[in-house]
Amino acid sequence: MRSHTEELWFELPERVAFVNNTERVRQALAKSGVREGLCLVNAMHITASVFVNDDEPGLHDDFRRWLERLAPTDRDGYAHHRTGEDNADAHLRRQIMGREVVVAITDGKLHFGPWEQIFYGEFDGRRRKRVLVKIIGE
Amino acid sequence: MRSHTEELWFELPERVAFVNNTERVRQALAKSGVREGLCLVNAMHITASVFVNDDEPGLHDDFRRWLERLAPTDRDGYAHHRTGEDNADAHLRRQIMGREVVVAITDGKLHFGPWEQIFYGEFDGRRRKRVLVKIIGE
Amino acid sequence: MRSHTEELWFELPERVAFVNNTERVRQALAKSGVREGLCLVNAMHITASVFVNDDEPGLHDDFRRWLERLAPTDRDGYAHHRTGEDNADAHLRRQIMGREVVVAITDGKLHFGPWEQIFYGEFDGRRRKRVLVKIIGE
Repeated sequence: MRSHTEELWFELPERVAFVNNTERVRQALAKSGVREGLCLVNAMHITASVFVNDDEPGLHDDFRRWLERLAPTDRDGYAHHRTGEDNADAHLRRQIMGREVVVAITDGKLHFGPWEQIFYGEFDGRRRKRVLVKIIGE
Repeated sequence: MRSHTEELWFELPERVAFVNNTERVRQALAKSGVREGLCLVNAMHITASVFVNDDEPGLHDDFRRWLERLAPTDRDGYAHHRTGEDNADAHLRRQIMGREVVVAITDGKLHFGPWEQIFYGEFDGRRRKRVLVKIIGE
Repeated sequence: MRSHTEELWFELPERVAFVNNTERVRQALAKSGVREGLCLVNAMHITASVFVNDDEPGLHDDFRRWLERLAPTDRDGYAHHRTGEDNADAHLRRQIMGREVVVAITDGKLHFGPWEQIFYGEFDGRRRKRVLVKIIGE
């Protein structure tokens, strides 16, 4: 069994943002030498997300509005903020968007459908954060 | 390490539907010969989902109504539709329901609790779409 | 390839509860002897969840209130309840919070960011339920 481990760093100027990191995951896969296996990509922070969806800016605007409706920013309304934090909405949003994706590796490639792209979803940005890529296989 | 790869095709007449595909995954597992490992099952399309829940038609009706409430169909209300698409709701719904499941394989079987069943969730049907089954282990 | 399988039991007195089980997963990992690999942790019941988020009681109160808003308890409003069940809300909540997490294993440890903790999320408690830990690697 081979394995490969890589941490990707992000520091985004916005509080909420979506970044396509498919190419960086592909580069990690190329380094791994794995032909058949699984590739885990996960946010290492609990106010961020890794998910697979469409690389279309209008849809990302829809995500922003939708998350604001389902899990609003609200300085005073969350019990979590009694600790001095102000990011409860980000913790909730990451549950909807998900922590991680597991992608199949077949013939040395990410085994994707026609539109699948891997995104980093940031819900409490303006600080350095990491995404983990872990590849195992043969 | 052994691996096994299979794509399952779906073409559903409804826009929104839930299909139990546990048996097809079991057949893929039988072909793989894997006794201990992991089985990834994921939608290959970004307006569909794979998830584990109950095989009960009433609950599936509840899912339909609930998703319509949380992520409504709306011809005009989504920025994504400026591209000519009309399925932003389907992209949002798939985030709630999830892209994939990873199932443990123990003693050559899907290691499931008493009620776990694997579903394909379609949110923008009436076209051919695929689910990927990737099995690795020994 | 090595593999290790363990079922963790829970019986919680509340209907809705969040329990940190990171330490139990760490103990399973120590028994496995795996240094590089993947660790799947999943609820074996379809009205429960396994997820990674913050170990902060205020945030857990926020989760409770938020889930009650997005997927309310409602004795009469769900089609699933025609079967005699009363837990449709729990089936919906588990879709938001997720069935499983897959955690990377690097150098024999759970490869976690600074605040990541693994939780069992119970949405229909007061009965015995299980979480599965499946570890594969080398």
